[in-house]
Amino acid sequence: MRTRLTDAFGLKVPIIQAPMAFVAGGTLAAAVSLAGGLGLIGGGYGDADWIEEQFDIAGDAPVGLGLISFVLDDQPALLDRVLARSPRALFLSFADPAPFLDKARKVGVPVICQVQTFRDACHAIDLGVDVVVAQGGDAGGHGQSRGTMAFVPEVADEIARRGSESVLCAAGGIADARGVLAALALGADGAVIGTRFWGARESLVDRRLVDPTLAHTGDDTIRTRVIDSVRRIDWPERYSGRVLRTTFVDRWNDDDAGLRSDLPAQEKLWQAAIETADTSVLAPFVGEAIGLVGAADDAAGVIAMIQADMQEVFGHLTGLTSPA
Amino acid sequence: MRTRLTDAFGLKVPIIQAPMAFVAGGTLAAAVSLAGGLGLIGGGYGDADWIEEQFDIAGDAPVGLGLISFVLDDQPALLDRVLARSPRALFLSFADPAPFLDKARKVGVPVICQVQTFRDACHAIDLGVDVVVAQGGDAGGHGQSRGTMAFVPEVADEIARRGSESVLCAAGGIADARGVLAALALGADGAVIGTRFWGARESLVDRRLVDPTLAHTGDDTIRTRVIDSVRRIDWPERYSGRVLRTTFVDRWNDDDAGLRSDLPAQEKLWQAAIETADTSVLAPFVGEAIGLVGAADDAAGVIAMIQADMQEVFGHLTGLTSPA
Repeated sequence: MRTRLTDAFGLKVPIIQAPMAFVAGGTLAAAVSLAGGLGLIGGGYGDADWIEEQFDIAGDAPVGLGLISFVLDDQPALLDRVLARSPRALFLSFADPAPFLDKARKVGVPVICQVQTFRDACHAIDLGVDVVVAQGGDAGGHGQSRGTMAFVPEVADEIARRGSESVLCAAGGIADARGVLAALALGADGAVIGTRFWGARESLVDRRLVDPTLAHTGDDTIRTRVIDSVRRIDWPERYSGRVLRTTFVDRWNDDDAGLRSDLPAQEKLWQAAIETADTSVLAPFVGEAIGLVGAADDAAGVIAMIQADMQEVFGHLTGLTSPA
Repeated sequence: MRTRLTDAFGLKVPIIQAPMAFVAGGTLAAAVSLAGGLGLIGGGYGDADWIEEQFDIAGDAPVGLGLISFVLDDQPALLDRVLARSPRALFLSFADPAPFLDKARKVGVPVICQVQTFRDACHAIDLGVDVVVAQGGDAGGHGQSRGTMAFVPEVADEIARRGSESVLCAAGGIADARGVLAALALGADGAVIGTRFWGARESLVDRRLVDPTLAHTGDDTIRTRVIDSVRRIDWPERYSGRVLRTTFVDRWNDDDAGLRSDLPAQEKLWQAAIETADTSVLAPFVGEAIGLVGAADDAAGVIAMIQADMQEVFGHLTGLTSPA
């Protein structure tokens, strides 16, 4: 399988592992990259020491780094520090990436820009980023509401219309070979996979949460601001986070004011739940694709499975297109 | 192109035209069926005289009928009356189809059941409906929030797991060959297309609305209950409708109580807007795929285009899979 994404990064499969904050460390990123995908450390909110540690763990494996763009506004030194680690790519999500592109380009680090609206996609294409990721709200974690299915081809059309050389990836709701092939059919050059790797053995997730979470169907996730409120993380208004629904989420989802007025107590409850891995409270950032993930595997197993299944799915499509 | 859907209904393309209420009359349904897809009259809220008239207009073309299931609860005679027209299929959406299946089966009318959650999909599979449509919230009109991308393969897995013979179609965000092929990659046997046919020349939409609507991107739609409130249509709580955002929608979307308290005046304004085709008020039921639809075409043109483009998209996938 060769696409513009695999060519750009020398991959065996057109798959980027989502840089999930607090979940994707150096071990997961390295495992994905060594298996032929593009592994990314989830740098999230920009803890520079933790990020450096994860690069050390990844060792020689060519891993990239994901950051929530707006944390760079408050930490101008962070960008220099992480670029000094020569990441395989810099994956920026949420907020305008424009102020950070020059520095990355100067040191030859490709920039992947994840967007959630057609408007922001146009801006990323304008900026000439190396890779545009069109992320549907089907995805786990932070995002907006566009659905992957129509968003991806709309961005593909715009890239073609402008004669842009930006590579396009699809994110949101993709967890297996069917999703990857669907992304390619929609006009993308590859797919970003989060939830499947969330459950992978190399992820930093508390293992006590994995099996109970994987037992859920895609019906059981919801976009909410509850988790940011209880963690006191001030996300811009337009972003919510898709999580697994829990009793705690359902209690507060329609009552953010109530949660904020009782924050000290609820925060304590949340912290206690982290200690005990209380699945009635903790709401992992997983996407609708949770319904497609059965058992935890290691990253190499995930990629080998997708590679094998893609042949099968493609064979199925060939059978439909050229009926006997 | 042969799939279980084309085999079941003798179609040339694995495409069902969505039975959009007030939009899909006999002319559109007939044009789609004659071009090789499955055309459906949008029977919506169950105006039996109007439905009969549309069957008359469709003439000999093998068209089906879509109904909002819960309207059958209040109008038990309606089902007999429409089944007497020997529809090519009965497409039921929203609420439990169980009470209506026996009658359809007795007269040999295949039942297509559109669902919006995995839970409802399991129920439809249990019932042994002929076709399950997994509708993502990317779709225009009424629905729920699951995204098409992960919902479709999850239902496909369940159908396989149970050894069910139900055919599976994907709906939501599909407007062209890329979406149809993506649906097939995700494990569906075909796709339901709404928004593209909303704009088709044979639709019953006020033509003054078509071009202004088609000029929008997919960012410009929203799931809301505003339109049902102003029309005094009492939809069950869990369903909202995706529409084009207008000044009117934005004004009331977060203030349903305010809208209801000023209903007589707002209703008057809405009715006046229908007369004048006021695009700052009227909010057509279109999906995120509106960003993929450029110009209005006739139904036969839409289907011919999709047919031709599917070859091209498949050729593109073949090139990726078997690189030189």
